[in-house]
Amino acid sequence: MSASDAIGAALRERFGEEVPVPADLDGAERLARIAGHRVCRRYSDRPVEPDLLRLICACALSSPSKSDLQQRDIVVVRDRDLRRRIADLLPHMPWVGTAPAFLVVCLNGRRIVRLAEERGRPFPNDHLDLLFNATGDAAIALTACLYAAEAIGMGGCPISEVRNHAETISAWLGLPERVVPFAGLCLGWPADGGRIAPRLPLALTLHEDRYAEEPFAEGIAAHDARCAAMGLYAGQRAVERWGEAPHYGWSEDKTRQYAEPHRADFGAFVRAKGFSVE
Amino acid sequence: MSASDAIGAALRERFGEEVPVPADLDGAERLARIAGHRVCRRYSDRPVEPDLLRLICACALSSPSKSDLQQRDIVVVRDRDLRRRIADLLPHMPWVGTAPAFLVVCLNGRRIVRLAEERGRPFPNDHLDLLFNATGDAAIALTACLYAAEAIGMGGCPISEVRNHAETISAWLGLPERVVPFAGLCLGWPADGGRIAPRLPLALTLHEDRYAEEPFAEGIAAHDARCAAMGLYAGQRAVERWGEAPHYGWSEDKTRQYAEPHRADFGAFVRAKGFSVE
Repeated sequence: MSASDAIGAALRERFGEEVPVPADLDGAERLARIAGHRVCRRYSDRPVEPDLLRLICACALSSPSKSDLQQRDIVVVRDRDLRRRIADLLPHMPWVGTAPAFLVVCLNGRRIVRLAEERGRPFPNDHLDLLFNATGDAAIALTACLYAAEAIGMGGCPISEVRNHAETISAWLGLPERVVPFAGLCLGWPADGGRIAPRLPLALTLHEDRYAEEPFAEGIAAHDARCAAMGLYAGQRAVERWGEAPHYGWSEDKTRQYAEPHRADFGAFVRAKGFSVE
Repeated sequence: MSASDAIGAALRERFGEEVPVPADLDGAERLARIAGHRVCRRYSDRPVEPDLLRLICACALSSPSKSDLQQRDIVVVRDRDLRRRIADLLPHMPWVGTAPAFLVVCLNGRRIVRLAEERGRPFPNDHLDLLFNATGDAAIALTACLYAAEAIGMGGCPISEVRNHAETISAWLGLPERVVPFAGLCLGWPADGGRIAPRLPLALTLHEDRYAEEPFAEGIAAHDARCAAMGLYAGQRAVERWGEAPHYGWSEDKTRQYAEPHRADFGAFVRAKGFSVE
């Protein structure tokens, strides 16, 4: 299969529709990695050497950053005891403990404030924008880290649930004021090929000139049916509360998931860490 | 130059230090694109065909998403009048008007709330976490979009300043409640090679087991000196307020930039759009 064909096949599986790919696309082999992104939670025994992890992190920190402020950091977790303690917080995600490498990408609204203080400059920007920009920078670096790893044949799995234990993990990593964990990232060499995660039809998420989420019900139903056909979301969530659904897919699973409160204390944590949300 | 050598050269220029690269790295040619990322604001006349832009966007929407919630959308701006109006808001960034392609990546906290309402499910998650997750998803998709374009030889420039005009642009794009512009993205075929943007020393941003930003002053000074040697930040900002600095680099420029308030109304906008920041 040519690289262009591989891109087409990945996107067909992803969106359930045809996305035309030029046959003579320069760089198709590079694009195929991005089109074919798949989460990787099972890893071979092959270790990730410290130098290679450092290289991947340097590539991640080469990513764009809002106004060149570089409001993100990476903490590589190498200490075995620290890693075990973090993994013990997330027992339903054993890959946090078993992945050959694990790191935490943090948002950092601290450096610019520290610099302003040291230079005796005013800082009239202690409002939501600081948190928003730093969150964006952290997410950008996380993505670059994952794609850098995938570029060289590795696989990974972002762990946003570190935010469920943001205060504990912040203390363990020694994160100072205005530095907050954004996500963990498991990395390693894939034990298997993984699978393409299906996504909502492009009609719902890719717009021209004007946002238009219709036909909403049809789009959601099509996505639910594709997820079901692929055997995803097979185990029904919170049956004791919502019963057994005859047709269970993405939308049923997600509305059940978010019928429970999640991270309701995250705002308080972020404010306690020194960010204003005004 | 081998691809491994190209990665090493890019990172040396980026960080001012050596980051070892294995000589026999599988996928080095793919990684070289990510290591060598550079912003592109000047484009050749070569158009970006609609099908190719759709392909890039589909790759962007193939990126990871927190809990598979897919809380981001892309609006491609194709209408000439709409594009001109957006460009007119940002006259100091002429590439917003001249780039062959322009799109706006939005965060979308709406779909899950709409689904919950339609299914009669409770949604006890109307707090900061919803905004935070959607912001992360949007930043991830933006990064994937840019890297997908770069994989096939194109270049781009994220435009976070669309948030300076968030209310106006939201109205023009028809963004409904809980859909907010995250960033614009200019795309096209580079008119020149561009240049590597230097970044803070890894000692300040890449940590092992524990956050440690020392030696802070030395790291900042080294970065400032490298920026100055590369001719960056040559035009001093707000001289009428702060005078001419004998040594002007990144930290002097950024503390001057953030001595003025920026987007102080962004929190109010986001709340008016239906997000809670509690």
